[in-house]
Amino acid sequence: MFESAELGHTIDKERYAQDEPELRHALLTAQYELVKRGEFPVVILIGGVDGAGKGETLNLLNEWMDPRHIQTNAMRPMGEDKFQDRPPMWRFWRVLPPKGRIAIFVGSWYSQPLIKRVYGELKTAKLGQSIDEILRFERMLTDEGTLLLKFWLHLSRKGQAKRFKSLAKKKKTAWRVSDTDWKHLEMYDKFQSVAEHLLRETSTAEAPWLVVEGADERYRSLTIGKSILEAIRKRLDNPTRPTRIARTPPRIQPLDGLSILDRLDLTQSVGKADYEDQLALEQGRLNMITRQKGFEKRSVVAAFEGCDAAGKGGAIRRVTQALDARKYDVIPIAAPTDEEKARPYLWRFWRHIPEKGRIAIFDRSWYGRVLVERIEKYCGEPDWGRAYGEINDFEAQLVKNDTVVVKFWLQISKEEQLRRFKEREEIAFKQHKITSEDWRNREKWDDYNVAVCEMIDRCSTQVAPWTLVEANDKYFARLKVIRTIADALEAAI
Amino acid sequence: MFESAELGHTIDKERYAQDEPELRHALLTAQYELVKRGEFPVVILIGGVDGAGKGETLNLLNEWMDPRHIQTNAMRPMGEDKFQDRPPMWRFWRVLPPKGRIAIFVGSWYSQPLIKRVYGELKTAKLGQSIDEILRFERMLTDEGTLLLKFWLHLSRKGQAKRFKSLAKKKKTAWRVSDTDWKHLEMYDKFQSVAEHLLRETSTAEAPWLVVEGADERYRSLTIGKSILEAIRKRLDNPTRPTRIARTPPRIQPLDGLSILDRLDLTQSVGKADYEDQLALEQGRLNMITRQKGFEKRSVVAAFEGCDAAGKGGAIRRVTQALDARKYDVIPIAAPTDEEKARPYLWRFWRHIPEKGRIAIFDRSWYGRVLVERIEKYCGEPDWGRAYGEINDFEAQLVKNDTVVVKFWLQISKEEQLRRFKEREEIAFKQHKITSEDWRNREKWDDYNVAVCEMIDRCSTQVAPWTLVEANDKYFARLKVIRTIADALEAAI
Repeated sequence: MFESAELGHTIDKERYAQDEPELRHALLTAQYELVKRGEFPVVILIGGVDGAGKGETLNLLNEWMDPRHIQTNAMRPMGEDKFQDRPPMWRFWRVLPPKGRIAIFVGSWYSQPLIKRVYGELKTAKLGQSIDEILRFERMLTDEGTLLLKFWLHLSRKGQAKRFKSLAKKKKTAWRVSDTDWKHLEMYDKFQSVAEHLLRETSTAEAPWLVVEGADERYRSLTIGKSILEAIRKRLDNPTRPTRIARTPPRIQPLDGLSILDRLDLTQSVGKADYEDQLALEQGRLNMITRQKGFEKRSVVAAFEGCDAAGKGGAIRRVTQALDARKYDVIPIAAPTDEEKARPYLWRFWRHIPEKGRIAIFDRSWYGRVLVERIEKYCGEPDWGRAYGEINDFEAQLVKNDTVVVKFWLQISKEEQLRRFKEREEIAFKQHKITSEDWRNREKWDDYNVAVCEMIDRCSTQVAPWTLVEANDKYFARLKVIRTIADALEAAI
Repeated sequence: MFESAELGHTIDKERYAQDEPELRHALLTAQYELVKRGEFPVVILIGGVDGAGKGETLNLLNEWMDPRHIQTNAMRPMGEDKFQDRPPMWRFWRVLPPKGRIAIFVGSWYSQPLIKRVYGELKTAKLGQSIDEILRFERMLTDEGTLLLKFWLHLSRKGQAKRFKSLAKKKKTAWRVSDTDWKHLEMYDKFQSVAEHLLRETSTAEAPWLVVEGADERYRSLTIGKSILEAIRKRLDNPTRPTRIARTPPRIQPLDGLSILDRLDLTQSVGKADYEDQLALEQGRLNMITRQKGFEKRSVVAAFEGCDAAGKGGAIRRVTQALDARKYDVIPIAAPTDEEKARPYLWRFWRHIPEKGRIAIFDRSWYGRVLVERIEKYCGEPDWGRAYGEINDFEAQLVKNDTVVVKFWLQISKEEQLRRFKEREEIAFKQHKITSEDWRNREKWDDYNVAVCEMIDRCSTQVAPWTLVEANDKYFARLKVIRTIADALEAAI
């Protein structure tokens, strides 16, 4: 796939002098329109062979366009940065640009798999996994509206050798060729073979790799500049990007009308004295587990969802009572802030992902996408339809990074909900807990049931299973919740 | 000042059992009102003698109130955390709570000065500096509307010894007493003497230390709980907090009407050929400086302000052209986001403070407070009046952390501005640079002049001087800007 990039492409001075000002002007104009309309973000990856002009291209783009609206991310090699406590993709999530902005990555999610594979630290099977992760991440980006452009700057083996030699010759530039560079030149074929594999597997319809010959600066610069211009212009001029067909497969409608929620035995209960004994016991157990040495290499992400008035708050409180307040955060999920709205949906959850040795408790969660947002039509079917896969992927990444993921659905019967709503209206200090919205949601009880069942069917995975909690009896529910967390953590440590 | 906290205060079981439920309910109610109204944040510091119940208090407050709206910050000892690249206060700024939220700090801006002074790593004079910094930081917090509550949990020497012994005796709690704890018990008097000094100097009218005897858990808990309740209630019930008298001293009105801006020789200019030669030279020099080893221990914060159409963007562009795009960020200051609006004014600048080895270029800056916000009355005189001091303090902290701070005011004449406005309206690709707001601002030319002069008089400090740039000639201005940055950086390295 590098053949066309070894033809010795060149652009002469005259043509460059003629094309460049026009290109710059058009790029700048497009950029300002992008900023002003604020409809989508642009992510540009610049990868390629060392010496092929990655750094130069980055600088040039910042010079051609208005650098105030560009953010540049030169990721340090993983292992050297500060984010090793979090899943590998965290460092990229945190710097995703908002709508209207351009982010350029030199060193991206491709760097680590490439280097590690070349050095033999990653087996082919593992490389395959990395590629899958990349594909899912990029699909999420493009589905969320990001314009993703991937450039690969290529040099032939000869070209690379020539480049290094010419740099090394002059005193002024000699420092730019490191020992590692010379070593990598020796490994040229290995690099090429892994790179080709990576590029081939990740050249998708929506974000193909654009391979550019890097030897001639003028050719390289104009080619990249024009590609970026064309892509941004095209999107600006055709703002209704083709809606991707929802990836929601047809759902099995149970012919007998029986759902997993119906199967829950909501009559289960625990007496007060028993509850108090067992709660103290389980809280003590959970507390001790979080004090163990092994906990420092783990983190916990707990998501609480449930019917209105099912007792999420109370259950969360019984968990936090057991924990040292220095070790946990409770994150209540309310309406997104404007910084959150400008970025892909999962961004506002990624930003709260805990470091090792910490527990993040989400009061409502990323499942809002397939529950309230689906039912209230805050997003379209293509959006919530793909959310199941994105969520599974998100949780798998957490688990892979030694996070224990627990998810609770607290279920009560429709009658019990009515009883609690009325109680809340009557008791003074509970009135803040009931609003007209709760009553409106109640009318959609059946819609929620369908959405909940689909959510559980599609997102209860081996690594991050859903725990359904029979919550008509609060004591029973709280015990089940805290016991589940303690069990999961114990099993992990 | 610890005498009253060694009286052996106790609360018996009966009274506790009676008071506690009522207190909890009142606290929770106050907290929900706080959240709902979202008018001010609450910051609670819990400091004191080891073993006096800091951790227990933190946990208790999270249990009594709704932990979803509390954030807990247990700062690791500085030197162990990830933020050593930034000024010491950065780690606190980044976790300041938004309006409506409560943040509890166990381990705060007092921890480091206290420990270091006890261990003799900080001379008395330096401790004095730390205290000044703390006073300024806390005054900023309270001026910005934060309800700041500071609790100091005290134990007598005997009390501390007793506490440690009783913990060490039982197998279940023995791990809680560390070697450091025993060592600190030996140093009790030293700790007390430094603590007393610290507390005395930082007990201000608005945020005095509340010393609480820590020996009796019930006494301690009720005392702290009631103090918090009372303080929050008081503020909720009297939302118009007494406006602090503006700290704007009377300004000297020059009798002859002459200002520093009038003294600028705006006719200074450079020919095109000269400009191009010198620009290349200065850009090369700046580039080389940022490649030096010494640069990795420095950072640069550059703020650009100036009349409309004075050429800020063009000047910034000439600077960034000289830099490796991996080393700088340009931060355009526009309207604050809602996350920014919920926090103290300077928060949105602190979040962009660069790590070492990096350059942050602010296109417009924190000086907006004393320029546009003052003139357009976006904030009151008490707010912009105190901003001068807050800004000087902010910049001093940067400089102290090895940041080179450069600040440019680009000045053009009123006639030159008119010429440029008209030009912008005429040339197609410049039209996005001129709006009706620019014309409106122009009418306030004289007001801006007064504000600019006051800003320069009060914020041009030795550590972070203002550079006034005569900008009628763009070439001259750009050269002066880039030369100033290169000189400042060269002097620093």
